[in-house]
Amino acid sequence: MTSRDNERVVLARDLVGTPEPDDFRYELCERPVVGPGQMLVEAEWLSLDPYVRALLSGRHFLRQPRAGDVLPARSVARVVDSRHAVFSIGDRVVLETGLQRRTVSNGDDAWLLHPGHSPASTALGILGMPGMTAYFGMLDVAQLKAGDTVLVSAASGPVGSMVGQIARIKGARAIGIAGGPHKCTWTVREARFDACIDYKNESVDQRLRELAPRGVDIYFDNTGGEILNTVVMGRHLAMHGRVILCGLITQYNLKDAPNGPNLGPLMACRGKILPMVVYDYENRREEFLRAAIPWFESGQLAYREDVAEGLDNAAAQFCKLMRGENFGKTLVRLL
Amino acid sequence: MTSRDNERVVLARDLVGTPEPDDFRYELCERPVVGPGQMLVEAEWLSLDPYVRALLSGRHFLRQPRAGDVLPARSVARVVDSRHAVFSIGDRVVLETGLQRRTVSNGDDAWLLHPGHSPASTALGILGMPGMTAYFGMLDVAQLKAGDTVLVSAASGPVGSMVGQIARIKGARAIGIAGGPHKCTWTVREARFDACIDYKNESVDQRLRELAPRGVDIYFDNTGGEILNTVVMGRHLAMHGRVILCGLITQYNLKDAPNGPNLGPLMACRGKILPMVVYDYENRREEFLRAAIPWFESGQLAYREDVAEGLDNAAAQFCKLMRGENFGKTLVRLL
Repeated sequence: MTSRDNERVVLARDLVGTPEPDDFRYELCERPVVGPGQMLVEAEWLSLDPYVRALLSGRHFLRQPRAGDVLPARSVARVVDSRHAVFSIGDRVVLETGLQRRTVSNGDDAWLLHPGHSPASTALGILGMPGMTAYFGMLDVAQLKAGDTVLVSAASGPVGSMVGQIARIKGARAIGIAGGPHKCTWTVREARFDACIDYKNESVDQRLRELAPRGVDIYFDNTGGEILNTVVMGRHLAMHGRVILCGLITQYNLKDAPNGPNLGPLMACRGKILPMVVYDYENRREEFLRAAIPWFESGQLAYREDVAEGLDNAAAQFCKLMRGENFGKTLVRLL
Repeated sequence: MTSRDNERVVLARDLVGTPEPDDFRYELCERPVVGPGQMLVEAEWLSLDPYVRALLSGRHFLRQPRAGDVLPARSVARVVDSRHAVFSIGDRVVLETGLQRRTVSNGDDAWLLHPGHSPASTALGILGMPGMTAYFGMLDVAQLKAGDTVLVSAASGPVGSMVGQIARIKGARAIGIAGGPHKCTWTVREARFDACIDYKNESVDQRLRELAPRGVDIYFDNTGGEILNTVVMGRHLAMHGRVILCGLITQYNLKDAPNGPNLGPLMACRGKILPMVVYDYENRREEFLRAAIPWFESGQLAYREDVAEGLDNAAAQFCKLMRGENFGKTLVRLL
């Protein structure tokens, strides 16, 4: 018999609307057993991500978790036992473990924590999936050029802050949209955006008319909803503008997907709507890190983290994220 | 003094909703005088086009006509007097004249009627702007490939019928959407589409599930509205599917632009939304005609025309078009 020295967070019931702590259950469980070709890892940092809410509604293209299933989560973890051909005890890896402390993995989706001197947690944020989303979304999908004006929503989050900072590094102008003066101030002062619109206290339409009277070349959309509608229907795209569909946090809590923008204005500006899905770029992670680690180490990338301590606080932290009350990359620390 | 032997159709009042004949005024007027560098043309065929309705609401990117202005229209016309360096008396040309019999032009937007043996009226339809819209929309914007499944709305119209026939010529599958059994039967029997959905009597969603269970690679949208919403939100796009935004006839009569589809489903299928504006391809007309005239002359292009006789019937014909009661390329004959 194995000991119950493991811990995890499972879905307690099917989700409706904005998640509440009672939708999840923290529980002790057995330590998993390593089989041939497997490794046992202990999570140090766990990532909480909005797309998991879409997953929980079956609205994402990945498998929908059901009551009793461990919540999906990517982690930075240390290998503590290994019968794996590649990964050895002591290695630090990034992989999908779900929200649990100890996990057995066959290593198929694991890779070594990036080299360099950045904190390990950045492998889940600015140097991880969110950073890579911004990188390939901007350089590959949106075809960013020097001189472009870039608008991005959820600008103080890990994707949005990276979008604006890549814009600046590449000689473009960055305008953020975020909720509340704290986030906006950080986005301009720390992440060095040219401007940030506080959508909770300002008219996005009006501010865009002032800040980008000739329109934006790229709108990197992390939110969907009213902001997306305003950009398209308010004719804030410049000629040949690109809308990058990346995240839809405004609708993940909704039962039915709301209607989107009327697409007529795209004709006049020849605007395109293009999706960005980071899974399509998994095989280009090295390319991303070769660019981003030097930026990080030379101090060009500000980032912000919102950290909860311990798995027993993970559910509340996820609920906070889904209420938009987080500030920066949302993490759970198990160290 | 010049004689009042000219005739024209002007906008009588600002338009609201579906156009009615009283919104327009047929009138006799003076024959225009040819100045240096100009030519006088007499229209033989006049084109009626849905985008003109958008123009009349100021919702198009071209100039909004006001009460008293001649309605915009492209025509096939004969040069009857010329002080122009290029065009001579007797030339047949295609140009913007507006809805009038005799027009003076500086020739800037005029070109010679295409060569070959096709009827002159096709220069306003399948071998004109609508045909060219289909051609570059399919081959350039949508990047049509053999084996693709192509869906097109307003399938019996001049753009839609050409979209499906180009699909077939290029080895793709063509599914049309049209209103009523007459249009659908023509689309399949004459234009040789693989299938046509009667949106007035069938569920587009249900029929698409049957006809294209793995989705469509290209949706060429001439309508907007519910059909566009069904294709996107009903997840009828195949992986890497393309929506070509071309026409929005469902909303031209509306005062306010309605909301469009929720764009979330584009993430799963990596679907793109791309605008097609034929004015961007004016300098590639020769390329289009070099492909399309041989198709036409070898009997590969069926087309259908809906012809009214005389300018005094032009307003009623335009109103019929905007009620969706036309069948095929809508024209006014002045011969």
